[in-house]
Amino acid sequence: MNEVKNAIQDDYGDDYAWCYGCGRNNESGLHLRTGWKGDKTLTIYTPREEHKAIPGFIYGGLIASVIDCHGTGSAALALHRKLGHEPGDGVEAPRFVTASLHVDFMKPTPEGIPLRAIGEVVEIHPKKWKVVTEVFAGDVCCAKGEVIAAVMPDTFMKK
Amino acid sequence: MNEVKNAIQDDYGDDYAWCYGCGRNNESGLHLRTGWKGDKTLTIYTPREEHKAIPGFIYGGLIASVIDCHGTGSAALALHRKLGHEPGDGVEAPRFVTASLHVDFMKPTPEGIPLRAIGEVVEIHPKKWKVVTEVFAGDVCCAKGEVIAAVMPDTFMKK
Repeated sequence: MNEVKNAIQDDYGDDYAWCYGCGRNNESGLHLRTGWKGDKTLTIYTPREEHKAIPGFIYGGLIASVIDCHGTGSAALALHRKLGHEPGDGVEAPRFVTASLHVDFMKPTPEGIPLRAIGEVVEIHPKKWKVVTEVFAGDVCCAKGEVIAAVMPDTFMKK
Repeated sequence: MNEVKNAIQDDYGDDYAWCYGCGRNNESGLHLRTGWKGDKTLTIYTPREEHKAIPGFIYGGLIASVIDCHGTGSAALALHRKLGHEPGDGVEAPRFVTASLHVDFMKPTPEGIPLRAIGEVVEIHPKKWKVVTEVFAGDVCCAKGEVIAAVMPDTFMKK
């Protein structure tokens, strides 16, 4: 049932693994995990009961969060591979930040089932990658997203 | 200290007040509240300690959530006013859904201080409104957003 066996977030450095969306060290967070699925990227997440918009449907902010962290994770996967590495090989993965996020909400997203975010990654600059994502609930594409992700600047960390 | 005295979310019908971002009935949620500030709209939210990206900074999904619910709330404020009503006058407010969401992350958003989302609302169709939002941490604009919000279809409610 763990379809994403090796996730890029498992290989973020400890100092970079606190994100509410995808940080393994954030106890309250969503623990989103993103891995390769062929030449596409995959994140699977089942929203919590409270993540509703109105009864029966998921709120937009959760879907935006999934697309956001799936985007930075997918960009990290792609750069890591370009540098000769795969998640799980013991090498610390690069960390990206989101420059921009766009979400088109196609259909109401039903609650109670796993959401599958499937992404395609394109390098648009050595430090900037575009990730186009579709979010499926079952067979239905409920949202489409685009993230521009940039390599996290060294100056980003608080000293 | 309650700068948004009358919020549109206080006047959503009980069945429509469950959103994780802005529903007053969602015990686990963020309880975002949006009101008029002159001819602009205002939502103030102080992220929780766990809403970090890396230590010191807020994760993008939270900012996207604020812009999203601020967008639907601002559109509801504007349509409500067009129909002759203001939040707090005892009339149930219209409810919008998000058709699209765009966020440009301008600067890292520091944790530990209230975020102020300030919006401008434009009617682009009687049932579709555009909300352009800037999110400030103190004097610094950390993110800019655009939401296209549509009146929630009657068919959206689960019977």
